[in-house]
Amino acid sequence: MEMIFLKKLGKQTIQFDTPPTILECASIVGPKEAQGPLAKYFDQTLDDEFWGEKSWEKAESKIIKETVNTVVSKSGVPSEQIDCCFAGDLLNQCISSSFGLRELNIPFFGVFGACSTFVESLSLGSICIESYANNVLCATSSHFCSAEKQFRFPLELGNQRPPTSQWTVTGAGATILTKSGQGPFVTCITPGKIVDMGIKDANNMGAAMAPAFADTVIAHFLDTGRSPNYYDAIISGDLGYIGKDIAIDILRSQGYNVKSNYNDCGVLIFDKASQDTHAGGSGCGCCGSVFSGYLFKQLQERKIKKLLLVATGALMNSTSSQQGESIPGIAHAISIEV
Amino acid sequence: MEMIFLKKLGKQTIQFDTPPTILECASIVGPKEAQGPLAKYFDQTLDDEFWGEKSWEKAESKIIKETVNTVVSKSGVPSEQIDCCFAGDLLNQCISSSFGLRELNIPFFGVFGACSTFVESLSLGSICIESYANNVLCATSSHFCSAEKQFRFPLELGNQRPPTSQWTVTGAGATILTKSGQGPFVTCITPGKIVDMGIKDANNMGAAMAPAFADTVIAHFLDTGRSPNYYDAIISGDLGYIGKDIAIDILRSQGYNVKSNYNDCGVLIFDKASQDTHAGGSGCGCCGSVFSGYLFKQLQERKIKKLLLVATGALMNSTSSQQGESIPGIAHAISIEV
Repeated sequence: MEMIFLKKLGKQTIQFDTPPTILECASIVGPKEAQGPLAKYFDQTLDDEFWGEKSWEKAESKIIKETVNTVVSKSGVPSEQIDCCFAGDLLNQCISSSFGLRELNIPFFGVFGACSTFVESLSLGSICIESYANNVLCATSSHFCSAEKQFRFPLELGNQRPPTSQWTVTGAGATILTKSGQGPFVTCITPGKIVDMGIKDANNMGAAMAPAFADTVIAHFLDTGRSPNYYDAIISGDLGYIGKDIAIDILRSQGYNVKSNYNDCGVLIFDKASQDTHAGGSGCGCCGSVFSGYLFKQLQERKIKKLLLVATGALMNSTSSQQGESIPGIAHAISIEV
Repeated sequence: MEMIFLKKLGKQTIQFDTPPTILECASIVGPKEAQGPLAKYFDQTLDDEFWGEKSWEKAESKIIKETVNTVVSKSGVPSEQIDCCFAGDLLNQCISSSFGLRELNIPFFGVFGACSTFVESLSLGSICIESYANNVLCATSSHFCSAEKQFRFPLELGNQRPPTSQWTVTGAGATILTKSGQGPFVTCITPGKIVDMGIKDANNMGAAMAPAFADTVIAHFLDTGRSPNYYDAIISGDLGYIGKDIAIDILRSQGYNVKSNYNDCGVLIFDKASQDTHAGGSGCGCCGSVFSGYLFKQLQERKIKKLLLVATGALMNSTSSQQGESIPGIAHAISIEV
């Protein structure tokens, strides 16, 4: 029996008085991501989208599997000492995670928050660390080809993509949280509510998710009494260029100026001028790999000391769009400090 | 700041020394379930599968929405005092939950464990209660028509169903967990590992999930030192008739006799002789509605005093089956005592 210290802060935020440590991270990304500005930060980059598998779905499963194997190996934590795993992805019924991690032999909680899944898994993992677990594994993946095929059109058609569309990242990120460590620490989390402002354009996810981002970030500031300049960096999951601009506007209209320290994983991962991804990157693997690759190293090297990571998700599918539905958004925020 | 008591028991089980109370439950089911043996236990039964909506997906969203409204109303807990919600379903990207609950205005964690989702949500909800939350909402749904359309064939084709196939329940279950109550109490949980024994027949989910059920139940017995006769009832999520028989056989081969006190939600919800559901019920709404309707009342009336509820899930989709993959199973167990 041990004493745990957790408290609710304001309406929506959970503060950790004995904060979990992010012990280790790993990331594997695809060939396009390997040509982007963050290439050097990833553990492994692939030469093609198949990685020797017969389908994109199997390739995505292999990516999350090998990313998890990499983080477990780097961390030095024996897998039998990992108490549970949170994982999810964009594929129908989250098959990338369940097939990729079926040999893991660790209690498994499947989570789904679309592109917000990475921070959702870190949030729930942190709660488990504070309540019973010594080590928790969190992992998410996405794959450009499996996502396009499932959500949009067969790639073989060569359809044009509208300028507002985002490019699903091929990649995975995985993290091990631990009870007693030297940081970076998860100091608080603000789980988000579903926000639906009526956007119906499935090729403009940034616009659909930006209000949810603003809702969660404002709740976080109100609950904690912090202002935007408390953080060295506020990074959204993947609003992309269009959603990022909308998010800045919404926050400004509510009295919060984030222009100097705010950026987005979907903006960071691809080069706008040369990579032709239109509105930027997206997918569960976008925030997962950008955090596990780039941001975690910035925290380790203390180039970022206080990070607010806010992953955003569009909670729709192709049937809901075909039935004329709008796109509910969600955003989960996690405060990470060294 | 408060003191919380949670401990890990054995390899896989979490014990609550100050166990969460299951404060209230609600359930709404479809017309076929309304003709079954448990009809009188549900809060509401529907006359048709559409419930005034234009699509089965929208009907399923309405079912989970109204089930949640019912449980919140019955509980007397103001929704602004509910700290978070765990919800999931079988539809691609869990749209039943996210659309049905988008107006909820409560921090939302999407979960996916196929038909194991109900107990997954109760498990994570209980951990939140023990760590920071006063009240947590858990809800799951499924719908026969939306599931058949998505996983199998258009209903209009009138395809024959093999004898091993299960009938997806149209319905939802919702539960409110609370910190300080008079029970029934969640005394411990055993989150499951993914188990894949190579079954490839997507029309025989019971066989695919039974090994995962046995794996989790045996872990639970080993961790807690309990034997099957500790429980008045051991109820699996939805193995159906075929999976139930396999589960009994596997457990017997490992030295556990559950024949006298074991049953299955998929077996309980339909009448075998008259309802023609072949191997019995299934779906996130099966365990959800059978627990929230029938089993919760048995606990309240102390006809069952110690219940081991073990929801089982098949973590596949139609693409994975088409690609020749086997079906990974999972089972999460929760011990509920009055």
